[in-house]
Amino acid sequence: MHIDEMILISVDDHVVEPRDMFERHVSAAYRDRAPRIVKNRHGDDMWQFEGQLRPNVGLNAVAGRPPEEYGYEPTGYDQMRRGCFDVHERIRDMNVNGVLASMCFGSFPSFCGRLWAMTQDKELALVMLRAYNDWHIDEWCAAHPGRFIPLAQLPLWDIGLMVDEVRRVAKKGCHAVAFLENPLIVGLPSIHSEAWDPFWRACCDERVVLCIHIGSAWSPSPPAPESPVETIMTGVPIGSFHCAVDLVFSRVLRNFPDLRLALSEGGIGWIPYFLDRIDWIYARHHRWTRQDFGGERPSDVFRRHFLTCFIDDPVGIKLRNEIGTDRIAWECDYPHSDTTWPTAPEALHANLAGASDDDVNRISHLNAMRWFDFDPFSAMGGRTRCTVAALRAQAKDVDLSLLRGKGGKAPVDAAQGFVTASDVMKQLATALDGQANRPA
Amino acid sequence: MHIDEMILISVDDHVVEPRDMFERHVSAAYRDRAPRIVKNRHGDDMWQFEGQLRPNVGLNAVAGRPPEEYGYEPTGYDQMRRGCFDVHERIRDMNVNGVLASMCFGSFPSFCGRLWAMTQDKELALVMLRAYNDWHIDEWCAAHPGRFIPLAQLPLWDIGLMVDEVRRVAKKGCHAVAFLENPLIVGLPSIHSEAWDPFWRACCDERVVLCIHIGSAWSPSPPAPESPVETIMTGVPIGSFHCAVDLVFSRVLRNFPDLRLALSEGGIGWIPYFLDRIDWIYARHHRWTRQDFGGERPSDVFRRHFLTCFIDDPVGIKLRNEIGTDRIAWECDYPHSDTTWPTAPEALHANLAGASDDDVNRISHLNAMRWFDFDPFSAMGGRTRCTVAALRAQAKDVDLSLLRGKGGKAPVDAAQGFVTASDVMKQLATALDGQANRPA
Repeated sequence: MHIDEMILISVDDHVVEPRDMFERHVSAAYRDRAPRIVKNRHGDDMWQFEGQLRPNVGLNAVAGRPPEEYGYEPTGYDQMRRGCFDVHERIRDMNVNGVLASMCFGSFPSFCGRLWAMTQDKELALVMLRAYNDWHIDEWCAAHPGRFIPLAQLPLWDIGLMVDEVRRVAKKGCHAVAFLENPLIVGLPSIHSEAWDPFWRACCDERVVLCIHIGSAWSPSPPAPESPVETIMTGVPIGSFHCAVDLVFSRVLRNFPDLRLALSEGGIGWIPYFLDRIDWIYARHHRWTRQDFGGERPSDVFRRHFLTCFIDDPVGIKLRNEIGTDRIAWECDYPHSDTTWPTAPEALHANLAGASDDDVNRISHLNAMRWFDFDPFSAMGGRTRCTVAALRAQAKDVDLSLLRGKGGKAPVDAAQGFVTASDVMKQLATALDGQANRPA
Repeated sequence: MHIDEMILISVDDHVVEPRDMFERHVSAAYRDRAPRIVKNRHGDDMWQFEGQLRPNVGLNAVAGRPPEEYGYEPTGYDQMRRGCFDVHERIRDMNVNGVLASMCFGSFPSFCGRLWAMTQDKELALVMLRAYNDWHIDEWCAAHPGRFIPLAQLPLWDIGLMVDEVRRVAKKGCHAVAFLENPLIVGLPSIHSEAWDPFWRACCDERVVLCIHIGSAWSPSPPAPESPVETIMTGVPIGSFHCAVDLVFSRVLRNFPDLRLALSEGGIGWIPYFLDRIDWIYARHHRWTRQDFGGERPSDVFRRHFLTCFIDDPVGIKLRNEIGTDRIAWECDYPHSDTTWPTAPEALHANLAGASDDDVNRISHLNAMRWFDFDPFSAMGGRTRCTVAALRAQAKDVDLSLLRGKGGKAPVDAAQGFVTASDVMKQLATALDGQANRPA
C-alpha cells in the first residue's frame, strides 16, 4: 500500500488543557475554585488548584521543538505549538501528519485524572472531574466530528461514583475511560477485590474500554539518582507488562468475558515473549497454585481482552501474527517526545513494510474503530476523505518550522556530563519552589 | 540436527549446598562459627549462621517432585533429589538429561552471596565467603573435570576486597562471578560511581564474566498481597531489562570495552524489543540528555558486552538473528521449578526447530565455551563423548520416579481459592518462627 492511501487513527495522543477549559462547564457556585493558570516566579505557566501547583511538564509538549531543547522543565503556552491546546490548530497538525482521528489523554490532572483523587474536598473534585469530561467530550471532541475518540477520566476515589461516571459519559457517546495500572496507588482496593465487580459490569454493559496508559500508576525505580535519565524513560512501558500479568491471572477477566482494555503506549515488541511466559508459568505451576483457566491458556485470555498499542515498533510488527493482527493499534503520541509527528505516515509505513493491505488497514485504523465503536467515515463524508493524501492536501499552509529558543532550559546540573534522574527531579523542584501567586 | 547429536552446556543451574561443605575449607579458629544445618521446630532443615536462620526454599529444589507438590515452603535434604546437593548424583542427573556441563549458582547465601554482605562481622564473612568459593571450585567443580563452569561469589561489601577475590579465584581457573542487578541494595555505590573502576578493570584483566542472575537484587512489586503468586513469578526476569538499561547508558561499558556480562535466567524473547527501545530513546533524546555513543548505537554496545540466556523461549529463538546468534546461551535451571530436566534436550530441540546446525551448536554450547573460557572436550577425551546420546548411555540406571509425598506442604491459606503473594510470604514466616536450636 502506498503511504498516501493509508488511513491513520491514533489511540494515544495528549491534550494540553487550554486555560479557559473550565469556564463553560462549572456552575457559578464553584467557578472561583476551578483550576486556573498562574505564572510561577520563573515565569512558567502552571495550573493552580486548591493551593497547589501542577506543572505542564515540558517533555510532554515538545512536538515541533528542536531535540536539543527538550527537557523535563515546566513550560508555557507560548513555548508550545498551538496544536497542543487549540483544537482547531490540533486538527491542522493532524492533517499535516495525515492523521484522521485521535484519542487524547489529559495532561495536568495526570493521564488518568489522579489529581481529582488527590483532592481533599471530594465534592469539589467530582464537580471539576465532570466539568473536565464535559469539556473533553462536548467541546474538544465535538468541535470536529469524526476526528476524536472521546476518553473520560474517572473519580478514582470511589467505585460507586466511577460506575455512575461510566454510565454518564457513555450516554454522551464516550466509550473509553482512562484507568491505571494499579488502583492501590490511589487508595482503592486492588483489582482482586469483588468491590470492583459493579465497575467491571458497567464497563461491559456500556461497551466502555479501560485505557491504561503507561506511567499512570507505575514507574520503574531508577537504580540510583545518578542514573542516566534514559534509564527511566526506557523502562516506563514495562508497567504494562506487570499490569497485564496481574489482570490475566486475576478472576476479573474470566468473570467478565466482555471486559476490554487497551495497553496505551505499552509497546508491542515484548508481547510475544509475555504470552510465552504467562503460558509457561501457568503450565508449570497451576497444579500447586490452583489457578484454573479451564481448557484455555492465559494467552487466550489476554488476546480476547486486550488491545495492544505502539508508536514505532519494528519487532512487534514483525511478530504481528504472534500477537494477533486484530489486537494491535497504532499511536502518534502527539505532542509528547516519542511522537513521530509530522512524519508519522512515513514511520508507520516503514514499520509495516511487507505487510498485506489487510494487515495495514487493521493496524492503522480498523482495529481502533472496532475496539472503540468509532465510525469516522460517516462523519467525514466517506472513506476517501480520510486518507493520508486527502488530509495532507488540506494542510499545505501549516508552518512546520521548529520553535527554536522558545523553551528547553538546559538541565540545571548535568554535573556528570549527562542528564541524570536527579537532574530532572531538581528541575521539577525548582519550578515548584516559591508557590505561584499571580494570575497569568 | 538429531537430538542425540546435540551437545548441551547450561549456564544456569543451582547447587543446594551440602551440610558438610565448610568442614574442609574453614580454619580451626573459625570452624565453630561456620554456617551449620539445624532443624526448625517443624522439622525442616535450615542453615543457621550468626544466630539467624536461612531456609532452603522448596520451589528452588523441586526437580523430580510432582507439580502439585511444588511450593515456597522450606524443605529438607530428604525431600530433594540427591543430585541437588551430591555432586556425583548431580553428574548422573546431568547425564540422564544429556547435559555435558553446568554453571551452578548458590542457594542459601543467595544467588550472589548477599548473605555475606548482610553479616555484621565482616572478618568472619570474608572467611566464610572464601571457604564457600574454595568448596565450590576445588571440591564441587573439581570432582568431575569438564562438567562444571566455576562461578565465585564476591565480598559485596567492599570493592577492594571484590577485586582481590576476582584475582584470587581467577588464579584457580574461575572466570565467572555472581554479580547483582543493583549494588545499592547491599549498600555499595551505584554502578555509575568511579569507585567501581578497579573492579571493572580486574574483571577485564582476568577475563572474568559478571553473571547477573534474576532475583539477585530486584523483584517486581506485586500490586497487592492478594495478587496471584504468578504475578511475581512471571515478572522476575524483567529485572534484567532494568539492569541492562542502566549499564548500557552508563559510562562503564564504554570505558571498559573488554567487560563481559551474562543476564542469567533473564530470557531472550524481550531482547529485540529492548534493543529497538534503547536505540529509539537514544536517537530521540541524546541531544538534550548529552549521551554520546560516538558513531555507535546503544544496541551495538549491548551486543558487544552481554551474553543473553534462556531456558525455553520460542519467540527469542525465532528472533535469534536480531539478538545475535553468538550472544545466546542455553540454561537448564536444575533443580528449580523452571527446569526442563530430565527432558531438556527434547525441549531445546523443539525451540531450535529449523535452525541451522551452526546456530544449534552456537546456542547449545559453543557460545558458553567461548564466553567462559571453558573447554570440556579436552577433559572428556573428545567431542564425541559429550553428546546427548553419549551421556545418556551412561545413565540408564538413574531413577526418574517422582518423589511423591516427600514435601510440598499445601499453601497454608489460599483463602481466595488460589495461591497469592501473601500466602507464600506466610509460608516463609511460619518456617522461620521460633528460631531453630537443635543441630540436625
